[in-house]
Amino acid sequence: MKKIILDLDTGIDDALAIAYVLGSPDAELVGITGTYGNVLLEQGVRNSLALTELLGHPEVPVFRGEPHAQAAEGFRVSAATALIHGPDGVGGVELPAPRRTAEEVPAVDFIVRAAHEYGADLVLVPTGPLTNVAAALHKDPEVKDLIGRVVLMGGALTQPGNVNAWTEANIGQDPEAANEVFRSGVRATMVGLDVTHQTLLTYDETRQWRQLGTRAGEAYADMTDFYIKAYETTAPHLGGCGLHDPLAAAVALDPTLVECLPINMKVEIEGATRGRTIGDERRLNDPEKTMEVAVRVDVERFLAEFMSRIGSLLAKAR
Amino acid sequence: MKKIILDLDTGIDDALAIAYVLGSPDAELVGITGTYGNVLLEQGVRNSLALTELLGHPEVPVFRGEPHAQAAEGFRVSAATALIHGPDGVGGVELPAPRRTAEEVPAVDFIVRAAHEYGADLVLVPTGPLTNVAAALHKDPEVKDLIGRVVLMGGALTQPGNVNAWTEANIGQDPEAANEVFRSGVRATMVGLDVTHQTLLTYDETRQWRQLGTRAGEAYADMTDFYIKAYETTAPHLGGCGLHDPLAAAVALDPTLVECLPINMKVEIEGATRGRTIGDERRLNDPEKTMEVAVRVDVERFLAEFMSRIGSLLAKAR
Repeated sequence: MKKIILDLDTGIDDALAIAYVLGSPDAELVGITGTYGNVLLEQGVRNSLALTELLGHPEVPVFRGEPHAQAAEGFRVSAATALIHGPDGVGGVELPAPRRTAEEVPAVDFIVRAAHEYGADLVLVPTGPLTNVAAALHKDPEVKDLIGRVVLMGGALTQPGNVNAWTEANIGQDPEAANEVFRSGVRATMVGLDVTHQTLLTYDETRQWRQLGTRAGEAYADMTDFYIKAYETTAPHLGGCGLHDPLAAAVALDPTLVECLPINMKVEIEGATRGRTIGDERRLNDPEKTMEVAVRVDVERFLAEFMSRIGSLLAKAR
Repeated sequence: MKKIILDLDTGIDDALAIAYVLGSPDAELVGITGTYGNVLLEQGVRNSLALTELLGHPEVPVFRGEPHAQAAEGFRVSAATALIHGPDGVGGVELPAPRRTAEEVPAVDFIVRAAHEYGADLVLVPTGPLTNVAAALHKDPEVKDLIGRVVLMGGALTQPGNVNAWTEANIGQDPEAANEVFRSGVRATMVGLDVTHQTLLTYDETRQWRQLGTRAGEAYADMTDFYIKAYETTAPHLGGCGLHDPLAAAVALDPTLVECLPINMKVEIEGATRGRTIGDERRLNDPEKTMEVAVRVDVERFLAEFMSRIGSLLAKAR
């Protein structure tokens, strides 16, 4: 059984990733580590606690990670991000207040401990900036070879970015951390805008969740409708909202959902194109490729899995 | 039999592309159309005339194309380019003066005529700026559907550029023309730095040409040594010279040499990343992909074909 750590800046598509993993019989969500991005660290941690309880899984521990990039003084949510996820990260949908609090152990320590405990069974799924992952690799270099794989939502290799023409939002929050992870040699799959802008959700699907008649179904429909509505403004050409974070979670569980290009990657940290994810020309001809980038996705099969796994979870949650 | 038009700014790797096609029994080189880039138009035309004669193929007609981008006032060879190909485009190697001159018919008219004459058998192989190709598509929109395919050397999708971090030299000469071709819907294969920086030649191979004892073998060895030497300065991490143009020619004849990503492409013509080749986000979810980008290459098989085809031609030329 795959052991999953979701490393989340819990906004709306992070909430969908939580539901995807909890709705998957072939995976155990061993913990959620909190990062910043869609929301501030504390808000994201609170959202993760509330959502796991709403989904009937209060046993999932939630850990506090780094509150900002190491190279930055602090972190503020951008105006564009607040429009997409709402200032609270869940589109203003009122969630029952969580009864638990975050664990005492810091996220980075938990990741290191889990790497030693689960080894190759562990898949780390960061869907925000890579600050926590870089810190864990730094704190204990053994983590790199112990864990099965990192499957990250972030970056864009064959498509423009969503912050500007070359930068994707997660990578753009902490290019230095992403560059460290990309160059570290850890086995990693990049699930970026190349594929997540192909997997779209519309009001047709959220309607099905609302019809389940559960509190969780209604909350998830409301949240996701907020997200779809934001996409009508920010990316009207897509015709739906991008299922970024749940696609990364899905690929972590079933890599055959995507076709990948094996390639050694880097992140540009200087100059005009800071934050751009691109092949590392100095490792182009290395026979060993430690990374792969998802470039094609089986949209139909993913959407079927997405609706089936999340639907069954929302149906049996309260 | 495939009918090939090479659209060349004849510098050193263009010379290798000519030899590759002329050394291929499965292809007919129906004409060379001249463009600018590695050298000025006139110099490139002269080089093409001289090289085809040196290789024993004075029957190949050479046509003069556009001398500069439509959006530009004129064209000057950059200092970096002059270093790589030499001011004369052939690394200062003395070639016998051509006995022919260029055809009277302009290159664009020849391309249009050939499209009607050869139809789907025709593969257009531009290895410089796409000025002539864009002009031909403009002059006769039927060309787009008549010809078999455009297989172009240019661009970089998964690797940095060679002019700057995001722009490859051929595309950078005329981003507008490239953008028109990329968005035109013509069936096209982009053979960019993604793969051409994987196919490298060293002094070991050129030594074999010199040992053939022919004038052509010696000239090709001398030219290519100049090119390899330039790479020692401009891209020492590669350990050889990139076989850009001959790889495009090879893919035109045998598409199985590369693995391609089907993707609708665009060229950024404005802003900081002018000249960048990237997926067109507005056509990402179009089910029809008119372009494909080579992302992997069978290096060993290509190099074997390269040495065998060019070697046999150089051996039997004078």
